Amino acid sequence: MSDADFTSTRLFVDGPLTEGTIVPLRPDQRNYLKNVLRFSDGGALRVFDGRSGEWRARYHDRGKRDAEVTVEAQMRPQPAAGDLWYLFAPLKHARLDYMVQKATEMGVSRLMPVTTHHTQVHRLNLDRMRANAIEAAEQCGVLSVPDIAEPMKLGAVLHAWQPSRRLIFCDEGAVLADPLATLATVPRGPLAVLVGPEGGFDAAERRQLAAAPFTTVLTLGPRILRADTAAVAALALVQASCGDWRGFSA
Amino acid sequence: MSDADFTSTRLFVDGPLTEGTIVPLRPDQRNYLKNVLRFSDGGALRVFDGRSGEWRARYHDRGKRDAEVTVEAQMRPQPAAGDLWYLFAPLKHARLDYMVQKATEMGVSRLMPVTTHHTQVHRLNLDRMRANAIEAAEQCGVLSVPDIAEPMKLGAVLHAWQPSRRLIFCDEGAVLADPLATLATVPRGPLAVLVGPEGGFDAAERRQLAAAPFTTVLTLGPRILRADTAAVAALALVQASCGDWRGFSA
Repeated sequence: MSDADFTSTRLFVDGPLTEGTIVPLRPDQRNYLKNVLRFSDGGALRVFDGRSGEWRARYHDRGKRDAEVTVEAQMRPQPAAGDLWYLFAPLKHARLDYMVQKATEMGVSRLMPVTTHHTQVHRLNLDRMRANAIEAAEQCGVLSVPDIAEPMKLGAVLHAWQPSRRLIFCDEGAVLADPLATLATVPRGPLAVLVGPEGGFDAAERRQLAAAPFTTVLTLGPRILRADTAAVAALALVQASCGDWRGFSA
Repeated sequence: MSDADFTSTRLFVDGPLTEGTIVPLRPDQRNYLKNVLRFSDGGALRVFDGRSGEWRARYHDRGKRDAEVTVEAQMRPQPAAGDLWYLFAPLKHARLDYMVQKATEMGVSRLMPVTTHHTQVHRLNLDRMRANAIEAAEQCGVLSVPDIAEPMKLGAVLHAWQPSRRLIFCDEGAVLADPLATLATVPRGPLAVLVGPEGGFDAAERRQLAAAPFTTVLTLGPRILRADTAAVAALALVQASCGDWRGFSA
């Protein structure tokens, strides 16, 4: 692998990272670089730890089982941390993997599983969610891996909510003349987006959400969207209206 | 299966449909209803043909190999046809399936594969794309299945373009202070959205797109999105700004 190729390989590693840091690799990371990507000793890649920015590094084999990377130079500084939570009713296996990956690509800073009346999945593998978030960050050049919160019931989430954070919830049953005009009324500050289960919120949940002083209702058009589609669609509208898609410099 | 359950089963069938129409089922449709969903004779479902609206119907076995549905009553009229084309550089297998499903959910009326300099997939199975569009329409309550166009090269697409249709293209390299303000300038009329390949457009393609009098450039934030994520994100912004997410009645 030539240096020209190194831009395509990104690895999330333990930090902090600075020039000269040596990071031991886990067996799965070593296997991925050595056996899947066919890295040879000295091969170049990019590494990040979620807070030190992105660094050029070199792969080194150390004996039969061990390997490490040596950190060389910073390629990108750590961007200002976004502050956008994504709350969702858990889905089953492959579609949950997909939703976690997509939310990470869309720049959320925290993933919060919430249990609702119509939620169909109650046992969650948080390690698997974290692995999916890391994989998406590695593939898409995202430098911050979202936190994964412990699952909570919707009622408890709302009860403990800090009202300074606006909670934008997607309601299939609502009708808005102009969803973007609604989002334009959202005050500046920390945000959260909530997408419900595929059966929707029940009547009591909708009442509770609508009555809370920190919520804004959002609609996603006349068609029913699957939850993973709704995740990307809602986050796109929120990022473009109130988030970091405005006035960024590429 | 009780009548109460029939709302969850939707089948795309050959039309036109009206009260009393008898539609023979294909072997795969019969197998799906009879062996996967365990339909018994007289079981209720919904059928649609992409232009006659949605109808309640009954499943009937006809001997060892044949089955049909009898159309009873219309549940929903056919909605006004949207007019939103989605142009995209083809992806590989599973991710192409996914993108076609997502674009259908988002309400596009035509799927147009376009070949660009960095496009990695050149052989396309259009039947498979159509099957994915139908599956998404069945699952998500969409009553119009998008047309699938034959693949064309980007240059030929632009050359043959009718300038009355605005082409909104997503450019990772562009910077917009406010993507929604840009979309607000799009004239009313037929629309198309173009998402490029994961390597992006090349310099000549970007010049050609930017120079065309019928194009509007759109950005999707500071992170690189995978093409299937970009599809949903771009279509969400366009539907909310200029499409049928405004002022719909649920």
